[in-house]
Amino acid sequence: MTTPVVGIIMGSQSDWPTMKEAAVLLDELGVDYETKIVSAHRTPDRLWNYGKSAVDRGLQVIIAGAGGAAHLPGMMASKTRVPVIGVPVQTRALSGVDSLYSILQMPRGFPVATMAIGSAGAANAALMAAGILALSDDALAGRLDGWRAALSASIPEEPADD
Amino acid sequence: MTTPVVGIIMGSQSDWPTMKEAAVLLDELGVDYETKIVSAHRTPDRLWNYGKSAVDRGLQVIIAGAGGAAHLPGMMASKTRVPVIGVPVQTRALSGVDSLYSILQMPRGFPVATMAIGSAGAANAALMAAGILALSDDALAGRLDGWRAALSASIPEEPADD
Amino acid sequence: MTTPVVGIIMGSQSDWPTMKEAAVLLDELGVDYETKIVSAHRTPDRLWNYGKSAVDRGLQVIIAGAGGAAHLPGMMASKTRVPVIGVPVQTRALSGVDSLYSILQMPRGFPVATMAIGSAGAANAALMAAGILALSDDALAGRLDGWRAALSASIPEEPADD
Amino acid sequence: MTTPVVGIIMGSQSDWPTMKEAAVLLDELGVDYETKIVSAHRTPDRLWNYGKSAVDRGLQVIIAGAGGAAHLPGMMASKTRVPVIGVPVQTRALSGVDSLYSILQMPRGFPVATMAIGSAGAANAALMAAGILALSDDALAGRLDGWRAALSASIPEEPADD
Amino acid sequence: MTTPVVGIIMGSQSDWPTMKEAAVLLDELGVDYETKIVSAHRTPDRLWNYGKSAVDRGLQVIIAGAGGAAHLPGMMASKTRVPVIGVPVQTRALSGVDSLYSILQMPRGFPVATMAIGSAGAANAALMAAGILALSDDALAGRLDGWRAALSASIPEEPADD
Amino acid sequence: MTTPVVGIIMGSQSDWPTMKEAAVLLDELGVDYETKIVSAHRTPDRLWNYGKSAVDRGLQVIIAGAGGAAHLPGMMASKTRVPVIGVPVQTRALSGVDSLYSILQMPRGFPVATMAIGSAGAANAALMAAGILALSDDALAGRLDGWRAALSASIPEEPADD
Amino acid sequence: MTTPVVGIIMGSQSDWPTMKEAAVLLDELGVDYETKIVSAHRTPDRLWNYGKSAVDRGLQVIIAGAGGAAHLPGMMASKTRVPVIGVPVQTRALSGVDSLYSILQMPRGFPVATMAIGSAGAANAALMAAGILALSDDALAGRLDGWRAALSASIPEEPADD
Amino acid sequence: MTTPVVGIIMGSQSDWPTMKEAAVLLDELGVDYETKIVSAHRTPDRLWNYGKSAVDRGLQVIIAGAGGAAHLPGMMASKTRVPVIGVPVQTRALSGVDSLYSILQMPRGFPVATMAIGSAGAANAALMAAGILALSDDALAGRLDGWRAALSASIPEEPADD
Repeated sequence: MTTPVVGIIMGSQSDWPTMKEAAVLLDELGVDYETKIVSAHRTPDRLWNYGKSAVDRGLQVIIAGAGGAAHLPGMMASKTRVPVIGVPVQTRALSGVDSLYSILQMPRGFPVATMAIGSAGAANAALMAAGILALSDDALAGRLDGWRAALSASIPEEPADD
Repeated sequence: MTTPVVGIIMGSQSDWPTMKEAAVLLDELGVDYETKIVSAHRTPDRLWNYGKSAVDRGLQVIIAGAGGAAHLPGMMASKTRVPVIGVPVQTRALSGVDSLYSILQMPRGFPVATMAIGSAGAANAALMAAGILALSDDALAGRLDGWRAALSASIPEEPADD
Repeated sequence: MTTPVVGIIMGSQSDWPTMKEAAVLLDELGVDYETKIVSAHRTPDRLWNYGKSAVDRGLQVIIAGAGGAAHLPGMMASKTRVPVIGVPVQTRALSGVDSLYSILQMPRGFPVATMAIGSAGAANAALMAAGILALSDDALAGRLDGWRAALSASIPEEPADD
Repeated sequence: MTTPVVGIIMGSQSDWPTMKEAAVLLDELGVDYETKIVSAHRTPDRLWNYGKSAVDRGLQVIIAGAGGAAHLPGMMASKTRVPVIGVPVQTRALSGVDSLYSILQMPRGFPVATMAIGSAGAANAALMAAGILALSDDALAGRLDGWRAALSASIPEEPADD
Repeated sequence: MTTPVVGIIMGSQSDWPTMKEAAVLLDELGVDYETKIVSAHRTPDRLWNYGKSAVDRGLQVIIAGAGGAAHLPGMMASKTRVPVIGVPVQTRALSGVDSLYSILQMPRGFPVATMAIGSAGAANAALMAAGILALSDDALAGRLDGWRAALSASIPEEPADD
Repeated sequence: MTTPVVGIIMGSQSDWPTMKEAAVLLDELGVDYETKIVSAHRTPDRLWNYGKSAVDRGLQVIIAGAGGAAHLPGMMASKTRVPVIGVPVQTRALSGVDSLYSILQMPRGFPVATMAIGSAGAANAALMAAGILALSDDALAGRLDGWRAALSASIPEEPADD
Repeated sequence: MTTPVVGIIMGSQSDWPTMKEAAVLLDELGVDYETKIVSAHRTPDRLWNYGKSAVDRGLQVIIAGAGGAAHLPGMMASKTRVPVIGVPVQTRALSGVDSLYSILQMPRGFPVATMAIGSAGAANAALMAAGILALSDDALAGRLDGWRAALSASIPEEPADD
Repeated sequence: MTTPVVGIIMGSQSDWPTMKEAAVLLDELGVDYETKIVSAHRTPDRLWNYGKSAVDRGLQVIIAGAGGAAHLPGMMASKTRVPVIGVPVQTRALSGVDSLYSILQMPRGFPVATMAIGSAGAANAALMAAGILALSDDALAGRLDGWRAALSASIPEEPADD
């Protein structure tokens, strides 16, 4: 049984369609991960325990997605020194700018590595996690280089009508 | 010795010039309060304990001010059913819109009574607290009515040059 | 016949789909309320009378929802010391930011406890009202604690595909 | 004694430095006016009375300036059919966008003729008032034409260093 | 044959669904108007001529709607002293905030009476025009008072489910 | 006497401190230009004439700066096919976002080449003009290449404390 | 075989529905162009080579469209002195304001001629390109004058119901 | 001689007052770093070379600060798989929202770990870098834990007047 090195957590089931993109990418890159719902407001003790045990459980990167008053990524960053990558989930009234500001504008001391709003941000969170892990995992570094090369190679020279 | 019924908490010493307005108003209205620095990110356990003990300590209202990724009001609202009033502190780059969205956009389940950005919001937090307490304190209700009447009476008929 | 302790008012019939969330929550929590259309601009005298009689009628909390140039919550706050909770209704062109600013940015003297934009804000207005009423109603406090515990207990450990 | 045909009203003494521009312009154009502080929140009855008596008192235009949750212009428009011109006063945190949205986004039925944020808007409110009055006052129409021609004539051909 | 006293102009055929609201309201109020497409950029000479002849043709109010870089209302205000009411048409990418700023932020000298973004603004433009015309037309004043009273009378006491 | 190929126009004397940057750059690059105040609202006929005669006068590029409801660049683009470069001048309340939207959001048919807000935009307007002129002026192309190379060469390897 | 004088480049296949408008306009105006996908991030070397060879290949104008963190127009402007016209493509969460700021706010030295967000901007990019080329191509100048005249002539006097 | 494992790069000397905060923090934490000016637009080849050689030079993290159309972080992320942390530098007209969007909204494939706008973001970039390096450096992990504990311990219980 593999031990997850990346934790993908999210504030709510409704964040999963966005955060699934991170899982897809980690699967492509062969990185072991777990997925959890950890609500900063509804399950604060779960947040506490997750953060407190992160180092001991061997987590290397935590990817946290949330929307609105998105406190999960920043609160997790306050509970563990494991790098936290934040994904602002798009919202109805404010398009995710509320999520973004709540995640990004952390005070001195507790960084959250903020990604783009929505699905692209979730995919990029996985790539950022892979880049971090690749610093001490040459095989993963090779797979990541390969993934990037394949992406570049997939771009056609000219646009095509549908 | 009086027991505080209102807790004025803030994320940082730098929020005090704003939050002092709440203290000034509560003094004017004769409401007992305490002032504490409770940083959601730097002292999360203090936040936990403050929230967990709020009901038992007899707090009736919590006024929480914070700036930037302002998680204090919302996290406090998740830890206690004591009503939490949030004050978005003005910030340098984003003028407090970051503070506002982080405090306001709470998900279903955990309301924060959000006030205007900055000092006017801090003063109004105290007045809102007084209005809540006045529901079961006729003397305070009288003082609050008096304060409101005096404010209205203080408005001159015509503007004056300096 | 029960006497309402909460008044849910709104500027227009079109606000009802949003404000109904507040009614649903109050029903769940067993809080008596009334629902009224009180338009600040179209029925200003109704607003006046509602505010003037609020204390005498025994209202403990007023929940006011409005959209656009949303003057109802703030004008009500100027007419009564009963705590007013404001719900910014989402709008077409400006997504409710117009509603939000019109409700939130009240001057010193007349606070409105502003909630999140839209339905989540309406639900939270009811929870905030319950939290205020629970300060002097132990049975309601117990029901509110129960509601919050049930919400937390309902969160699954892991996200699920649809 | 001249009877004012324009009322310049404002929510607070602090709006006077902005609104004075309207008075200056009306003086230049020879239009009689009065200046009053009418706070929607602190003196709502004054607002009521002002609106109710506007037609009978012979007011032809009301210029209303306010900042933040700026309810004065819209509430006045709900109380009288005399045309109301709104001036959004610049604010500290939100630069007057809060004032603007509170004045501009009036619902169907109660228009407010909104001007630019700040002093230019106050001056333009006076010019708009003059344009309205000039519809039935040929002498004023002539003075307004003259003012406009003089403004145009004052523009040099080329910019000059200070 | 009646002579129009109000000109409803717009920058493009695509503005008509919005501006039609103004025509509907003027019909209800019994005010004679004309409707024209006058594009500031595509037909600048038409704009010039319309503005230059407005006083002589007996126009009392011009209602101008436009979207995006909405120059029509402001340019018309520079060509005639007839009061210009501007309607910001909602746009795709920027929701009409571009239209709003282009219309609202006129420099000292050339006011445009700006209305809310979109259809409500167009309807209100007609009501503002009627309010202006009513200053010297008692019959119209009566019809406008009646319209306003009917609007207020139409508001039910309580919201209804669909 | 040299004939100007670039016209630097601006809506007001107050735009000159910003627009001077364009003049400085054109001087550095040896491009002949003229500077004029052409107010869209205060001197519309001047705008008309400037646009109508631009081709015949041999102007190759028009740089137009304006602030607020900035109609000058777009109106000029409607009067001439000479390329118009727009510079949004920073404003007090809205930081130049009003200027930007008024200049940028031109409808299909009348492009304005919009630059960054403020002084950097004015300097870049001159560089864009030079790039256009260099298409048929090899000497200028050489000077522009030299200017760009010098700029790149001026960047030190490492930042220095003051 | 004609040699393209305009290069229409875009960051991704998904930009093509927007950028196609530029191609359509250039076809109408009889200007030769090429269309390429050049991703700043996925194919940076392609960007480098395109920019480095632009002058030698005889390109006179480059139209570059991109969305989100839209680096293509600005990076291209840093690699060649050929005038670059930028088209901000509309995006999901931020409506193209992210694209706009990434393209517009270039530092002193590297202008990008920014167009309106979306399809209108793409069409206008083609017209701007034609205006630049027309400076040294009388036949094209004539066609452009004709296109503009036809656009103006196509505007009906009055709006029509559908 | 120590070999830097972190590269602090910035687009301009004017970014140094902000980015110096990152250097100060890395000094406190005992992490070796280098500081370079790498302008995406003025020294694109320097950017290319820096990115291409980053892995071979042993860089583990790149901290990139830039303002306005801030292309440096994203372009660097396209040139190397070494994790890039982006710091949006505050700007004059748009307060750094332009910098933020240019850095944050990267497309799928090329993440930039975005920090808060301004100095707090620069300090947090260093802490994020330390958190990444600490994954394989127990001594640094200990120092980082110590730094975080000291920060928490430094917070007084109550706010103090100056």
